[in-house]
Amino acid sequence: MKRKQNKRKATKIFDHHIHKSCYYVYYDNINNTGECFQSKHSFYMSYHKVNLKEQLVEIAWEICKTESWQKVNMRLVAEKAGVSTTAFYRHFKSKTDLKAELIRRGFQLLYEGMKDVTNNFSGYGAHYIRFGLDYPHIYDLMFGSMDLDMSLYPDLEALSDASFGGIVKGLNSFIPDESENHVMIKAYNVWASVHGIVGILRRSKWQGKQTETLEWIENNLEEYLEMTTFG
Amino acid sequence: MKRKQNKRKATKIFDHHIHKSCYYVYYDNINNTGECFQSKHSFYMSYHKVNLKEQLVEIAWEICKTESWQKVNMRLVAEKAGVSTTAFYRHFKSKTDLKAELIRRGFQLLYEGMKDVTNNFSGYGAHYIRFGLDYPHIYDLMFGSMDLDMSLYPDLEALSDASFGGIVKGLNSFIPDESENHVMIKAYNVWASVHGIVGILRRSKWQGKQTETLEWIENNLEEYLEMTTFG
Repeated sequence: MKRKQNKRKATKIFDHHIHKSCYYVYYDNINNTGECFQSKHSFYMSYHKVNLKEQLVEIAWEICKTESWQKVNMRLVAEKAGVSTTAFYRHFKSKTDLKAELIRRGFQLLYEGMKDVTNNFSGYGAHYIRFGLDYPHIYDLMFGSMDLDMSLYPDLEALSDASFGGIVKGLNSFIPDESENHVMIKAYNVWASVHGIVGILRRSKWQGKQTETLEWIENNLEEYLEMTTFG
Repeated sequence: MKRKQNKRKATKIFDHHIHKSCYYVYYDNINNTGECFQSKHSFYMSYHKVNLKEQLVEIAWEICKTESWQKVNMRLVAEKAGVSTTAFYRHFKSKTDLKAELIRRGFQLLYEGMKDVTNNFSGYGAHYIRFGLDYPHIYDLMFGSMDLDMSLYPDLEALSDASFGGIVKGLNSFIPDESENHVMIKAYNVWASVHGIVGILRRSKWQGKQTETLEWIENNLEEYLEMTTFG
């Protein structure tokens, strides 16, 4: 009964843009939080204007970046955006859909940064490693998601394949006389070395077991790669 | 009241070896399961005889090996051993204690298998990779546990350090003229390559994205390592 009254009240004031999903916010403000009704409403509307889906991704990205994917909870994401979980599910069929979106965003960020890399092979490798250190949880989603059926997200598969394709292409210009077979084997080795060192650097830091050598490697990634992988 | 009666009954029959922790089993048999009292009791006693702690580790190992560490639940482990969780906590202070025990066991198994490796560097590397493929979840515990405070388990830290020490020692005999600094850098690279390729091979299999090259690598690990890492 109270809900109905509040709805009427809200409808009266904001008649020009009242719609179903805003109703919840009116109700919430008036009855529970007691916050400024108009300001929260404008805040909510601005979310709608700048694309709610994008806002939900942004919130999930922040949680995943600073904590982990496991901490991304759809109810919490919806709550932080000031919408209901129903509104969330209007934009994402499942949590996996949201994960795919974060992975997509991760690859975009990774590739965007590559534009600034001076055109040498070790530079690209170092960029990968730095990305893995700066965005550990996003990186884990991008390269460690075992449960994601890539065939359901063909654009993601292409983004993911592009990383490996880049290595093969780079190697072809780096060691042009090698057989295709050898190039492929070496490409997997480059891939393994780059991802492997990310794991070592991260673990050593988290376990407080840094060594002088590891510190040197982290501060001289390109030189390290030239000495070992691209030497 | 019924419990007391049953205890008396049990005491009367098995007076020669009655003790506090067996009481639960008598009670459980007579009242709930109705299973053969004598046989379940012998089963329970045999657990005590061959060391309950070892049995609990064995059960947890099996769950972790076939499923994952996340699926290891202390209540379930105790249940499978036919004891109460209280009995479990008599042997392990926490779930982390149990994890440490599995890691310990993992290293023992890894190092035991090394005895059979013909004495060459690639052979050791290949053994590591195969272990990572055969025991993915145990391997993750051993090399991927970020939350385990190694200083609380000094013997584990030593076991873990021994892997890396082995690489350094191997490299010293493999490239004897290199500076200590270069050997250390190369050692981290070997470590990264070995762990990195385990990740690639596992992911490709789990995602159904195997390539001809990856299949070749998996079937020719030593040759692969000679071509890339120890070449």
